[in-house]
This record gives sequence, C-alpha cells and structure tokens, in this order.
Amino acid sequence: MGSALASALLDRGHPVTVWNRSPEKAKPLADRGARVAGTPADAVAASGLVLACVLDYDALHTVLDPLAEAGALTGKALVNLTSGAPEQAEAMAAWAEEHGAGYLDGGIMTTPPGVGNPEMMFLYSGSEDVFTAHRPVLAALGDPLHLGSAPGLASLYDSALLGLMWAAFTGWLHGTALVTADGTSATDFTRVALRWLNGAVSLFLTTYAPQVDAGRYPGDDATVDVQIAAIGHLIHAAEARGVDNALPELIRSTMRRAADAGHGSDSYAGVIEVLRGPSAR
Amino acid sequence: MGSALASALLDRGHPVTVWNRSPEKAKPLADRGARVAGTPADAVAASGLVLACVLDYDALHTVLDPLAEAGALTGKALVNLTSGAPEQAEAMAAWAEEHGAGYLDGGIMTTPPGVGNPEMMFLYSGSEDVFTAHRPVLAALGDPLHLGSAPGLASLYDSALLGLMWAAFTGWLHGTALVTADGTSATDFTRVALRWLNGAVSLFLTTYAPQVDAGRYPGDDATVDVQIAAIGHLIHAAEARGVDNALPELIRSTMRRAADAGHGSDSYAGVIEVLRGPSAR
Ligand SMILES: NC(=O)c1ccc[n+]([C@@H]2O[C@H](COP(=O)([O-])OP(=O)(O)OC[C@H]3O[C@@H](n4cnc5c(N)ncnc54)[C@H](OP(=O)(O)O)[C@@H]3O)[C@@H](O)[C@H]2O)c1
Ligand SMILES: NC(=O)c1ccc[n+]([C@@H]2O[C@H](COP(=O)([O-])OP(=O)(O)OC[C@H]3O[C@@H](n4cnc5c(N)ncnc54)[C@H](OP(=O)(O)O)[C@@H]3O)[C@@H](O)[C@H]2O)c1
Repeated sequence: MGSALASALLDRGHPVTVWNRSPEKAKPLADRGARVAGTPADAVAASGLVLACVLDYDALHTVLDPLAEAGALTGKALVNLTSGAPEQAEAMAAWAEEHGAGYLDGGIMTTPPGVGNPEMMFLYSGSEDVFTAHRPVLAALGDPLHLGSAPGLASLYDSALLGLMWAAFTGWLHGTALVTADGTSATDFTRVALRWLNGAVSLFLTTYAPQVDAGRYPGDDATVDVQIAAIGHLIHAAEARGVDNALPELIRSTMRRAADAGHGSDSYAGVIEVLRGPSAR
Repeated sequence: MGSALASALLDRGHPVTVWNRSPEKAKPLADRGARVAGTPADAVAASGLVLACVLDYDALHTVLDPLAEAGALTGKALVNLTSGAPEQAEAMAAWAEEHGAGYLDGGIMTTPPGVGNPEMMFLYSGSEDVFTAHRPVLAALGDPLHLGSAPGLASLYDSALLGLMWAAFTGWLHGTALVTADGTSATDFTRVALRWLNGAVSLFLTTYAPQVDAGRYPGDDATVDVQIAAIGHLIHAAEARGVDNALPELIRSTMRRAADAGHGSDSYAGVIEVLRGPSAR
C-alpha cells in the first residue's frame, strides 16, 4: 500500500521522499523519481507533510517513537493511513499533539490498484487544519472526505463500510449459489444484481436513512411482516438446491425479533432497534 | 400492485381492461380511462395479452381455473406477475400450455411507486415469443429483461436478489448502529455507504463473478485470511458500542470454514465453495 501511495503522488508530480524498513522495496519508486531516505528521521525532515502507512499501530510506534522523542515531529502534519481501531486513532492523535504535530487519521477505501483513482474514497478524521492545508496533495491518492474532527471517525466508518461489504458479498454469494445451481452463470446474475444494488436497493437505503435518524420507520411499501413471509421462499428455494441457509435464517430470526418488539408493520429500517445496544434504545 | 401496473399502462396510452375481486378498487382506474370488466372472463376476452397479479398462486388458480376449463385462455399470452416459487412458475407454464396459452412468468423488482419507472427491472422467463410480441407493452411497466426460457428463472432471480437486498440492508443497519453510537447521523453515513456500495464494492463483485464461473478465486488484493483478521476490528468496535454482532460473527465463521477448506489465500469469492450444496462442489 505504501508503494501505491507514493506512486500516485509521483504520478501527479508531487516531490516524494520515501522510507521503508526493507529498503529494496523502495527501488522501483526511486527509479520513478522518489528520493529514498536512509532513516525515518531523514524522511520526516524532508517535508511538512508526513504520510505513514505500515502494518499496524505497533509498527507505527516502532518507527515514530524515537523521532518524536527527538522532537522531529514538531510542526509537522502527520497523516496516518495505517488501519486500526477508533480508540487507537484517538490515542495517536493525543500522542501527536503531545509531540507538537497536527494529526489526521485516514481510512483507505480501496486496494492498492485503486489508489490514484479519483472515484475511490479516502476517509479522514481529526485536524481540519491539516486536511484543508494538504487537501490538494491528498486528492492525488483518491477522493478525500473529511468526516469530522473526532480522530476515531475514519476508522469507525472503515469498519462499518467493510461490514456492509462483507454482508453484501455474502448475500451475493448466496444468491449466486442459488442461481448457478439452475445453470445460470455468475456473470449473468451479477449483471442483474449490480443494477438491483445500485438502483432499487440504493433507493431504499436513501429512504431508510432519514427514518433511522427520526426513529420512525413508516413501512408503506414493504413491511417487516411481509418480508418475513417473502424470505421463506428464498430459504425454501435454497434448501431445495442444497445451499447453506445460515445467512437468510439469521436475517429471518432478526426480522422476527424486530416484529416481536413491535416493528412488524415498520419498514426494514426498524430492525435497527434490535441491533442497537440496550443503552441506545 | 395491480393498480400500479394498470396505471402505468394507462399513462403510456395503452387500452386497459381491469378486473379485481373487490370491484371498488378499480374505481380510480375507471376514472382514468380503464374499462372495468364485470368478470375475469370478460377481462380476459378483451385482449390477447393477459397480465395477472394477485396475492399468490392459490388466488391465481381460483380466478383462472374456471376460465381455462371453458377454453377462454386458448391463444392468449398470459403474463403472470404474482410472486411464487420457481416450481410454481414451472407448473403454471405447463398448465398454461395445456390450456393453449403462451406463458411468461415475471418478477417485479420494485414496489408499486416504482412501477412505470424505466430504471426499475421487471424480470421475465418462459416463452420468448410472448416476450418479443409484447415487449413494447411490458416496457411501460419498467425495464423488461428476459432471463431465459425456463419459466422458474424469474422467480429464482427474484428470491436471490431479495436475499442480496436483505443482506445489504442488515449490513448497512449494523454499520449504521455502529456509527450512530458515536454521534454520526444515519444520513451522513449512508451518503458514504452508497458511494462505497456503488463504487468499490460493485467493482469487487464485477471481478469476483467470472472467478465463480471459472471456479478459481485469485486473492491478489484481499484474501480471506486478511479479511478474517479485519472483521475482528469490526466485531470489537461493535461490541464496545453494544451493537448485536450476530451478522459479522456469522460472516467470520463462514470465512473461517472457507479458510479451513483451503480458501484462505483466495479472494472472498472462494467462500461460495462452503455455501454450495455438496453435490455442486
Ligand atoms: N492492502 C490493502 O488493500 C489495504 C487497504 C486499506 C488499508 N490497508 C492498510 O494499509 C496498511 C499497510 O497494508 P499493506 O497492504 O501495505 O500491508 P503489507 O504489504 O504487509 O505492508 C506492511 C508494511 O508495514 C511495514 N512494517 C511492518 N512491520 C514493521 C515494523 N515493525 N517496522 C517498520 N515497518 C514495518 C512493512 O515493512 P517491510 O516491507 O520491511 O516488511 C511494510 O512496508 C495496513 O494497516 C492495512 O490495513 C491496506
Ligand atoms: N407490493 C409490492 O411491493 C410487490 C413487489 C413485487 C411483487 N409483488 C407481488 O405482487 C402480488 C400482489 O401483491 P400486492 O402488494 O398487490 O398485494 P395486495 O395489496 O395484498 O393485493 C392482493 C391482490 O390479490 C387479490 N386476491 C387475493 N386473494 C384473492 C382471491 N382468492 N381471488 C381473487 N383475488 C384475490 C386481492 O383482491 P382484493 O382487492 O379483492 O383483496 C388483491 O387484488 C403478490 O404476489 C406480491 O408478492 C408485490
């Protein structure tokens, strides 16, 4: 990922100084015009903006702690693209402040080949000043979105979005297993599935989001009760084809819990009431 | 739904004869120019194309059986938009053939307010001849897609697509519960979630579908093993906020089963191998 980030910056003509623990990985970047620093201190000294992307927070501290102790981060803008928990981002922001650096935490919502594509989202949270000052450079990596000043937000969104992705992946695989059992190709099904996801399903989510914010879930078109009945057809068809039904069965039992809690004539958005922690209800 | 279908046809200037068990529901359609038939036989006699949309297959047979016995369906094109199982569509197609009617089975991939919107998909399977002959009329309802001549396909796709929808809904609600616990609005999160779903996630599915067809799942960018580790962060963050983790926990255990079956370094598409029935593996 570090190589992809540096490459995208070089592609847009930004001067880049790189450092990596294993120096041989920097070779292709050097060939493309990056300056290769011999030490992290050397790399950090080269610029007011420091992008960090290593395996995890332990690795990050291994690299940055000695520098910070030596005062080398004072006045720097530190943008951390290493993945971690919201709490780790918050602790890192406090640590950065202690050492005189501005701090922005980032979540990269793509894989390395997507870096540099302006359609791909890079989520940021933390210092607005750092974001505003360095937005043009960050825009070389992807579309930069600032979510708020709480440093943990980018990481929280990152987890929430990955959760949505895994759920969509698993629902798509279940449907794919179903239709391919009857001889349809996954490619044919997926063409239709993507239109569905990006069309009607997206419209539903657009309708449901303000319902969640209002805490009221009018179920005009499609109630939880009606969907409990409909998911029975899916479970039946999948069973007949030997497809594992753990996912639709979990969804049905979750809908039933929502109906039991009084949300049977609500829209699907009402199901959030049984997912939330007791304190939030 | 019957009213929405008739309205969309009237909107495009098609002559429409309607019948409904409770005649008062046809009143608004009559005001807009529909002819109201006194009996199902009267309605069927009015046109070569018969669209049927009632609660379920039992209701459908209650309405159509007497007509068919009397030979009133001979030479008609019957398009059935009543939801049911693939097996029911197949039996209905055989029944229609027996009574001299062409048969097309349909799945309506929207709610009544979406009918007439050309972006919304209407899935059809069964007679190609009926589809081709009546395509221009069917296009008044939404975008008509013919999936194949096996009559059960539209219903099978319908279930598979609804399953994808429920999975996406549940993943979205889980993520929404997570971020709203930290004070973000569902509306703000959903704006980002929709870009994610329609951008990067859709690109992944486009990459994965041919992998499923090929039965090989190269995991270059994001392997199952890496995602098993990453979902732990989501589960941890959700637990800390009291959010129900049944969905990500099921996804993790499914990924672990895939890894145990030798798909740890595959892409997520490899997970289909543990969802499929033993006979399909
Ligand atoms: N790959 C993706 O699709 C993706 C997407 C979004 C976010 N991310 C995040 O980006 C970060 C990097 O991921 P990656 O895919 O680039 O992983 P990777 O290929 O395993 O690279 C890990 C990097 O961390 C360095 N590192 C590990 N331990 C270190 C230590 N103790 N001291 C100094 N450097 C250390 C490695 O240096 P060596 O080269 O010397 O081993 C390497 O540069 C992770 O937090 C990941 O979650 C990745
Ligand atoms: N609503 C949606 O969002 C949606 C989306 C896709 C597919 N569908 C499918 O469309 C079909 C109709 O759904 P809907 O939403 O219109 O349901 P609905 O509002 O409950 O209407 C049911 C219709 O079936 C008729 N009916 C029921 N039993 C009958 C019987 N024994 N004899 C004659 N007519 C009978 C009803 O007549 P009365 O008026 O006399 O009761 C009414 O016209 C269902 O198969 C549904 O799954 C609906």
